Parts: sequence; C-alpha cells; structure tokens
Amino acid sequence: MSAERVRFDFNYLMADLLGPEAGITRDALDGWQPRAKEMVTRFKRARERGGAAFADLAYKREELSRINELAGRVRSEYKNFVHLGIGGSSLGPKALHLALNSPCHNLLSPESRAGAPRIFFAENVDPDTLTALVDILEPAETFINVVSKSGGTVETVSQFLYFRHWLKKHLPGEDVSRHLAIITDAQKGELRRFADQEGITSFAVPPGVEGRYSVLSPVGLFPAAVMGIDIDQLLQGAASVDPVVCCEQLWENMALMAAVLFYLYQQERGKSQLVIMPYSDRLYAFGQWFRQLWAESLGKNGRGTTPVLALGTVDQHSQFQLYLEGPRDKLILFIKVGSFPARPRVPSGQGVEGFDYLKGRGFDELLDQEQKATELALAQGQCGSCSLTVPELNAHGMGQLIFVLEMVAVYAGMLYQVNPFDQPGVEKLKRILYGLMGRPGYRAEGEEVSPRDKKPGRYVI
Amino acid sequence: MSAERVRFDFNYLMADLLGPEAGITRDALDGWQPRAKEMVTRFKRARERGGAAFADLAYKREELSRINELAGRVRSEYKNFVHLGIGGSSLGPKALHLALNSPCHNLLSPESRAGAPRIFFAENVDPDTLTALVDILEPAETFINVVSKSGGTVETVSQFLYFRHWLKKHLPGEDVSRHLAIITDAQKGELRRFADQEGITSFAVPPGVEGRYSVLSPVGLFPAAVMGIDIDQLLQGAASVDPVVCCEQLWENMALMAAVLFYLYQQERGKSQLVIMPYSDRLYAFGQWFRQLWAESLGKNGRGTTPVLALGTVDQHSQFQLYLEGPRDKLILFIKVGSFPARPRVPSGQGVEGFDYLKGRGFDELLDQEQKATELALAQGQCGSCSLTVPELNAHGMGQLIFVLEMVAVYAGMLYQVNPFDQPGVEKLKRILYGLMGRPGYRAEGEEVSPRDKKPGRYVI
Repeated sequence: MSAERVRFDFNYLMADLLGPEAGITRDALDGWQPRAKEMVTRFKRARERGGAAFADLAYKREELSRINELAGRVRSEYKNFVHLGIGGSSLGPKALHLALNSPCHNLLSPESRAGAPRIFFAENVDPDTLTALVDILEPAETFINVVSKSGGTVETVSQFLYFRHWLKKHLPGEDVSRHLAIITDAQKGELRRFADQEGITSFAVPPGVEGRYSVLSPVGLFPAAVMGIDIDQLLQGAASVDPVVCCEQLWENMALMAAVLFYLYQQERGKSQLVIMPYSDRLYAFGQWFRQLWAESLGKNGRGTTPVLALGTVDQHSQFQLYLEGPRDKLILFIKVGSFPARPRVPSGQGVEGFDYLKGRGFDELLDQEQKATELALAQGQCGSCSLTVPELNAHGMGQLIFVLEMVAVYAGMLYQVNPFDQPGVEKLKRILYGLMGRPGYRAEGEEVSPRDKKPGRYVI
Repeated sequence: MSAERVRFDFNYLMADLLGPEAGITRDALDGWQPRAKEMVTRFKRARERGGAAFADLAYKREELSRINELAGRVRSEYKNFVHLGIGGSSLGPKALHLALNSPCHNLLSPESRAGAPRIFFAENVDPDTLTALVDILEPAETFINVVSKSGGTVETVSQFLYFRHWLKKHLPGEDVSRHLAIITDAQKGELRRFADQEGITSFAVPPGVEGRYSVLSPVGLFPAAVMGIDIDQLLQGAASVDPVVCCEQLWENMALMAAVLFYLYQQERGKSQLVIMPYSDRLYAFGQWFRQLWAESLGKNGRGTTPVLALGTVDQHSQFQLYLEGPRDKLILFIKVGSFPARPRVPSGQGVEGFDYLKGRGFDELLDQEQKATELALAQGQCGSCSLTVPELNAHGMGQLIFVLEMVAVYAGMLYQVNPFDQPGVEKLKRILYGLMGRPGYRAEGEEVSPRDKKPGRYVI
C-alpha cells in the first residue's frame, strides 16, 4: 500500500504571506542549509552508535508475534483492559486509542467494538477515579497492564498493588497472574523482579528508549494491539517518513525545517509558547503526548518553549481572544486531518432564513473553513502559524505523525544544545517525593527541603 | 449548613519562604491597600449600576422552579442528555458534571446514576464525534439542550439543525420539540425566534452576562439540575464567599490578593504564563473553564498572561521538567481538594521489599504528598506557587471556587486596564469565518482576508 504522506505547510510563517517584519525570508532559511546538513550527519552518526534507539523502533519486529499473541488472548478473554502508567507510559497508547477508536468506544456493544475490550487509562492516584473504576469493573473480566520503565514509579506501583490485591481478594484460588502484564526494563527495577518471581507475562522497554519516545515500542504496541489497531501499519507509517526526516536538504526535510522555524521564532521573535492545535477531537490526546515530548525534551538549562494544547474549533471560543489580541508570544502549529471516513452534512435551515447559508455544508468542510479563518485572522495580526496535515486518521498516518514530531524534538534539542533524551528535573522531583514519604535511601532529600517549610501556614486567606 | 470555606494559600509567593529575589514582601503588599480599596469600591459601584450582572446570579432565583421542573421531566423521560454548545456555553456545565458526578458516569447502570441520564457534551463540529454520537444514541430516548447566547454560533446551530433533523427523521409524527430545550438571549437572535416559533421550552441567558461568566445562570443550572446536582447549594456556595471577595481589606480578600499577586508576578518578575494545576482528575474540566475565563477576560490590547492547564500528579511526569529547569516564566496555581469521600489505601508490598514504604498509605495522602513535593521542588528553584483548596468536591464548594476565580479575573482586568467582559478578537474571527462561508452580510470580511491567501501552496514539504 502506497499511502499518502503527512505534509508540513509553513506558508504563514514566511515573509511572503506574513509580511517582512513577522515572517522569515527564503534567503534566511537558505543560509541554514550548511548547519542543517551538519545536524543530519550528527543525528545519523548518533543513530549508528545506538544513541537514538527510538528511531529504529519501526524496524524492530522480534517482539511483534508475542505482542499479538497476548493481545489475542486478552481480546478473547476479557471485557476490560486497564492500563496503569503515567507520563510516557500512558500518553502514547492513550493518543493511539483516542485517535483510532470510536470517541464512544467504551459505550459501544461488544460487537461494535469488533472484539476489543473496554479501555481504561488509570494515570493518576486520585482516590475518586480509583474508586469509580473498581465500582464498574468485574474482576473476573478485567485485565491489568502495568507500565513503568524504571519499575518503581510511585503512582503506577501504588495502583498496581491496589489492583492486584483487588483481583486476589475477588478471585480467591485463581492465579491472578493471568490477568496481568508488566512492561518495564529488561533487567532492572522492582517490577522486573516481581514479574520474573511471579511468572507474569512481561515485555521490555528497549534500552535507551525514554518514556516519551517509547510509543512505537511494546509500551504503545501491546495496548494498541489489544485495541485492534494495525500495529504493522503503525510501524510502516513511521518507517515511511524516515527518508524524509533524515534528508540532508533543509527544504525537503519537514522535521528539520519545523525545528529551525520554531527555534528562530523563539530566538528572534520572542515566541516563548508553541501552541499545538489539532482540528480533530480524536487528536486531543495526541496533543497531550506532544506536550510531554516537547516540554521534557527541551525544557532544561533555562531553555525550551512552553507547549500549549488547544483544540480546534473549541478553543477558538476560549483561547483565541488571547492569541489574537494578547501578547505576541505564541506560534501556532495546527494538526489537520485530510479526509474523514464519514461526512455528515448540515440539513436545511428548517424554516429559519438566517441558517440557510449552512445548508448542505459538510461538517468536515465546516471544520476546514474554521481552521482557515483562524489561520487568516492570525496572519492578519502578523501572528505566524503552520500546519501538519495527516491524510487520514489511520495507523499508518499516526505512525508518520509520531515519528515526524519526535524528530522535530530531536533536531530542536540540537539547536538548543540540550540533551533531548534526559529529564533531570523530573528525577529531582521524584527524589524529593521519596524523601517526604520516607522511602529508604532518600532521607537527605527529605531533610533538604523541609527547612523551607517551617512556617507555611502564615499567608492564608 | 455552615460549610467550610475555600482557602487561598500564597506562602510560596512570599519573600519569607521563596527568598527576597523571587518572592514578594509583606511591605510591598501593604503598599497596595489604598489601591485595593479603590478597586473594591469601583467594583461595588459597577455592580450597583448593573455593570457586573454575573455577580448577582447567585441571588436570582426566579427561574429555579422552571429549571427544576424541566430537569425533572428530562430525568424521568430520557436516557441521554446531549448538550450542544461551545466555549462559555459548555465549559461551565461540563466542569460541574466532571467535578460532581462519577468519573465513569455514562458507564454506570441507571440505578447507580440515581435517575440522571447519560451526559454528552458535543462542542465541536468534528464529523467523527457527531457520527459516533448518533451511532450510540436512540432518538426516542434522547434530549437535546442547545445553548448559544447570540443564537447564531455556527458550530452550535449546525449541530442543532443536524440533531433536530435526526429526531424528526427517526420519530415521524412525533412533536420533537418535547426533546429540545434552547438557552439563548431573551429577545435577540435566530435561536430565540426559532424557539418562540416552534414552541420549544427555552431559558434566557440573563442580559449583560457573557458566556464565560454564565455558569451560575440557566446555562449551567439547567444541565446541572438534569445531572442531579444540588443547584441551590451551588448558588449558596457562590453567595457564601461574596463578603470575602468584596472585602476592602487586601489581606482578607482572596480574590483581590490573587489578582494583585498574579499581576505583580507578571509585571515585575516576567511570569507570562499562569499554570492552573488541579490535584484532582475531576477538576480537569474546571481548569478548562478557568482557561477561557482568564484568556478571554484579560487577553486584549497586548495584555494578559497565558493560562496553561496541567493536572497533578499526571503532568509532573510531562510538564515539570520544563517548569523546574526551563525558562522562569511561569507561576503555578494549584487547586486542591481538602477531603475525599472514599479513601482507598495501598495494600502491602506483596512480597517486594522495595514497595513496603507505600504500605497502608491512603491514595489521598499520596496525592497530597505529591503536591507538596512539587511545591517544594518549585520553591527550591525559586519558582513561585500558590493554592486554592476547596474543602470537599460538592456543589457548595464548586460555587465558591467559581465565584472566587471570576472575581480574580475581574480584579485582574482592573489592574490590566482592560474590559473583562468583552471579546472583540473572537467576534473578529467569527466575522472572517462568516465571510469565508458566504454568510449574507459578511462579504467584505471575506474579501478583506482573501488577498493574503493568493499563494498559500508554495511552502509545503
């Protein structure tokens, strides 16, 4: 299948359309070609040395049969699939689920779900959510998937202990390990030891792949396979854009071009916020996945820009007052869908003349016109925007979107001179939490922060 | 019932705890007292003259019996309640629904829903969402509530025409007006004419109340009553904090204090982003409601700050790398819940020593410790934060939170010298859309923007 490719349109960042003050000129971008070539060379060398393991996930197929096998058993035996994980352990599979399944998936009849169980993402340690979940789940019909790269994530481990206890309590005498899968490091961590000790089916997060770059590993692939998503097409989609995002020609490499433009707009135009704005309800969770990718990859050493998630058309009625007339500190990245499987239309005005101009319009046309109006209104105020268009919302298209944006983050990391694969701030926050909670080995962290906390009750109204 | 009050804690914005460079001193705030008093006086005068109609919604009770009556009929006759509206017409009721009903509401049995129908918010014109919705809804069992202040909102009117046609097609011979309610302006607009002409039950958006300030009007109250929310307690909650947010003493007025602090941190410390971060899944939609309130009220004349929504603990694993180690341009407002109705606990480590420190911990305690660790990690990096704590997630508490934050926005509007009740940028965007779509009377807008659009196909990869 020769599927259509994702397109990156940056007309409304260029001086031709945005004007010379706000826009970038063709000449300025031409001047970047030598550096662009160096960046691609550097990336390719790193990749060869194993320093960009995420980029080769699309070609790793050795686990696919085990993944499909367990997914098949889960689909045939369970009514509910509960995914425990937080951050990079949940945002990728959640993005795939929302993009590729019905927005009303859990309310569909089993037949309409085509064999997929109901899907639940339990990310938080919120007591209300946990309580509500166990209230509607039948233990015998529930499969629990636990994802933590380190094997010690507080939120996920707590949930895991809770749900495993719940299974054991309600299914006395049964081997609850059948209801469980664990995705964690191949060797290290408590969850790895637990899986091996209890004989729980497990998959490995490939070495060198950080959570936010792990969606094309078992972290995303196993849940996707349970949901009935064509994971082969997903990987093929990612692989299909590999030549594009590794091309040495700036004008032909959309990931590199986007990284350079976002960087220039921040450095030279003060755009400290990157608004990602899908015009599709189903891409909202994908926007949340991107928020993590962008924030954690670049937000270090005082650098980076804030990713802001907006949804078209909804946030036209919430955030656009600010975007159009507030401070000029934002750059907008629209995500568009080329064509929709169903095309409902607006019926006649039903007797009200004022509604007649809507008659016969497709809702897809309406969505497209709204995005266009938004882009034009922004351009009129010399506020730049660009767009990524995925031809269709299918597994192949999602694979493309994922790999293109991962590569934008990696190239942006080179421009900001930060390591896009670490997250020292998050590790620091975890150590403080462990210190507060009295986890053995973290006493110093608890003491370090507590003096500040001596009179916290003073300023309260 | 003398319920507990919402508390505003701003210790971690003060020099005492945050250090003299990043924090604000008590003396600096003392110096604001004269201006603070003037602001309250100015607000009270405007309120007396009818220039702050939203502030008196908590005392308007004349529509409550009609609201409760129709809500009772909907609850007894329908299985599904579909709310059509966008921006201020949906974010308020959606926030109430998510905060006060089960996170799994639509999956509960009718008995567990205690008489409330399944609730759907159709905000967007996304063809996928619309198609999925009509696939799972039975027309005979579905009630459609249409909300648009102007009566002409493209998205909402299109959906309304679609759903009304769908009802008529599937229920031939039936009076589909029984399945409909319209909430719009009392006199003006196409939807008002339609409601009157077809005899559809309608409620009025009170004059002078903009969408983002309308949740305590029929816009929020009717859906809330259908959901089984105690709307009397909701209004009482709002009224209960009225003396607090209209107090002339800065040190006793949490709304005024928050507005002054947020303003100072933007003007003097370069905090261009206000992160609202509830530590409760159920307050996520409330955060979306606040995003609109903040962005549309203040984002004009080049002023305002960007509201960013983050969720605790989830976004610790997504956004905190950036918040802790990226640019210092953010101020964090935590929203906390004082006590939870159910308190599940982490069971024992089940044989893994490394998990033992979690044994017996309540998930509510975990949530609280995580917020504390986050606050301390931020303070360690001299990044300021503050928190609003609602005693419990009930109607009374939500009424308090709503009115306090509305008043923060109004006071901030005074400080930024902008009108917090208009949205000229949104109106402009709507006119451009109408022009593009050929709506009669908007030809000029279409022509004005089209010349820019002459060669949009040039820069595409």
